[in-house]
Amino acid sequence: MLSQEDMKRALQAYIDGFAAGDAAAVSDLFAADAVIEDPVGTPPVHGRPAIDEFYANAIAAGSKLTLDGPIRGSHGNQAAMAFTVEVPAMNMRIRAIDVMTFGEDGKVVEMRALWGPDDIES
Amino acid sequence: MLSQEDMKRALQAYIDGFAAGDAAAVSDLFAADAVIEDPVGTPPVHGRPAIDEFYANAIAAGSKLTLDGPIRGSHGNQAAMAFTVEVPAMNMRIRAIDVMTFGEDGKVVEMRALWGPDDIES
Repeated sequence: MLSQEDMKRALQAYIDGFAAGDAAAVSDLFAADAVIEDPVGTPPVHGRPAIDEFYANAIAAGSKLTLDGPIRGSHGNQAAMAFTVEVPAMNMRIRAIDVMTFGEDGKVVEMRALWGPDDIES
Repeated sequence: MLSQEDMKRALQAYIDGFAAGDAAAVSDLFAADAVIEDPVGTPPVHGRPAIDEFYANAIAAGSKLTLDGPIRGSHGNQAAMAFTVEVPAMNMRIRAIDVMTFGEDGKVVEMRALWGPDDIES
């Protein structure tokens, strides 16, 4: 089974990928058939080609993530983190919590982002 | 549909119920057939009688919750928060993220708590 350290390392790599402006490093954390729902309640993005495009756009907008506290694990195959996203291209800040589910190979199979209209400041 | 404000108010009431040592106030946020998985990866607790007992025990241990940042909503029926739990009876501190799913009546139908063995300090 995937370790807590492995999952937390992947979430930190997600933050670091944004910091480095490296969309491929972020996308490569995901499995080929992964699903992301960002934010929860909007249509999911299915599969790596769409996910690659999603993160290419996010990083092209200059988005940077700052953790609100330590990354959390679980007693299973999920980890989560609370963070603030600065999006210079849109002159806004979003407060989010991402929950990621991992496959046995260490790739993220699902990401769900909790943030709503009230969690944006401009 | 339940508003973002309604969901965030319920999560704040959860924090406040612990602060007040009021287990019933916390339990009453949940639907009769709610399910809690705290932490994720352990056997779920089903239904109000078991949930009532779960929170009676947590509050008897003196647990207090401090938010790590603002409560997050979503574009759907979920909200989430990152917080630190102080448990004086066990001389420990747990860093957690709770994700709550709401029914149309405003009651919580599912709560999932993300924290692992590494998220405990003693």
